[in-house]
Amino acid sequence: MKILGIDGSGLVASVAVVEDDNLVGEYTTGYKKTHSQTLLPMLDELKKMIELDLNTVDAIAVAAGPGSFTGLRIASATAKGLGLSLGCPIVSVPTVDALAFNLWGSDAMICPIMDARRGQVYTGLYRFDIDGNFKIERPQCAVDFHEIAEDINSRNPDTVTFLGDGVLVFKELIAELIKAPYKFAPAHLNRQHAASVATLGMLYYKNGECETAAEHRPEYLRLSQAERERLEKEGKA
Amino acid sequence: MKILGIDGSGLVASVAVVEDDNLVGEYTTGYKKTHSQTLLPMLDELKKMIELDLNTVDAIAVAAGPGSFTGLRIASATAKGLGLSLGCPIVSVPTVDALAFNLWGSDAMICPIMDARRGQVYTGLYRFDIDGNFKIERPQCAVDFHEIAEDINSRNPDTVTFLGDGVLVFKELIAELIKAPYKFAPAHLNRQHAASVATLGMLYYKNGECETAAEHRPEYLRLSQAERERLEKEGKA
Repeated sequence: MKILGIDGSGLVASVAVVEDDNLVGEYTTGYKKTHSQTLLPMLDELKKMIELDLNTVDAIAVAAGPGSFTGLRIASATAKGLGLSLGCPIVSVPTVDALAFNLWGSDAMICPIMDARRGQVYTGLYRFDIDGNFKIERPQCAVDFHEIAEDINSRNPDTVTFLGDGVLVFKELIAELIKAPYKFAPAHLNRQHAASVATLGMLYYKNGECETAAEHRPEYLRLSQAERERLEKEGKA
Repeated sequence: MKILGIDGSGLVASVAVVEDDNLVGEYTTGYKKTHSQTLLPMLDELKKMIELDLNTVDAIAVAAGPGSFTGLRIASATAKGLGLSLGCPIVSVPTVDALAFNLWGSDAMICPIMDARRGQVYTGLYRFDIDGNFKIERPQCAVDFHEIAEDINSRNPDTVTFLGDGVLVFKELIAELIKAPYKFAPAHLNRQHAASVATLGMLYYKNGECETAAEHRPEYLRLSQAERERLEKEGKA
């Protein structure tokens, strides 16, 4: 089966096509352009290079959130538009799951951290068992960094690997709070990859986890700034 | 520092730019076009998308072999041409090392296998220690599959992960010969990635392992078909 993967959840924009056990193509940029300038042109370019007939795509896997609200909307709108026109289903892949899946086969506890601003992180805890099966130990969530640090310490892991754009922001707090030995994923694996979204999306699809393009919505995990400010105003009023 | 990574050692064509701990961009295709149709156009496209000034590149890391002879020559010629014109050094990254480096953080023994035809594989054995340091247990080599299978069995590993285009060809022999539990890397990690070449190339560069563009040559590990046939003819003559 053939899966188109899309990730616009962070600074990274990434598109990929995975067919069964093969990565047919992936195009990823981590560069300060908005995803409206990158995602669709990159997909168009990749489509031409691998002579992809979009009608042969069985499902679209999209990093459905959390992440940058605008980025998520651009990626989900792209997935929905393509899904509606092609009549193919969408697999909503939790962004943090897909990040952890970069480190397939690792024996460490895996803790992706994405900077969610205001002291919070989008995070979760993951492991791979000896057979390479993906285990979600704590599903993705938006929490204060202190909370995930406490959770990690309470599980007393042999070692933890951190990855994601939150590493830079929380490096000092990691050093201060984390009791287990820890390491940071290197450049080729430490940010979003649509190939991970597509490969994990294929697993989720085979587990029956998909929806129609009409049903699909991004999962923000938190209120947007505009919603939060409106609620605050209304509370004050 | 900024590294341009190039891999044309297999069916996959891949280019990437890594700056310190960040993947600025990667473009990878695993599609039946020759690398002369893909590598430079992909690099040109990526360069435009990430607004890369090639003069800011500190070194070019290239998967220097083994692999497809034509693919290696195209990738090395690209690296040499760019290196000569930009006056920047080349890091020759052993192809099999870079493949293994896809699985950074894995606790399994890692055995990349590339189909070298005539019953042989390009292979090697690798591990990551608990701190994520890359350990070469057997440097890359061209051997009969039976020889690497024996070597793996003699080391009695807890588990082995195979990856590379040889997996499909040698799946039955793996099942027959390998005594330890084994698994196969999934689609997003099981073939060449220039991001791995660039990230590992940066480590090698920092260890002083680089050469001038004029010095750089691909490492075929075996004689080419033309050379072999000439020698056979001369032997007969």
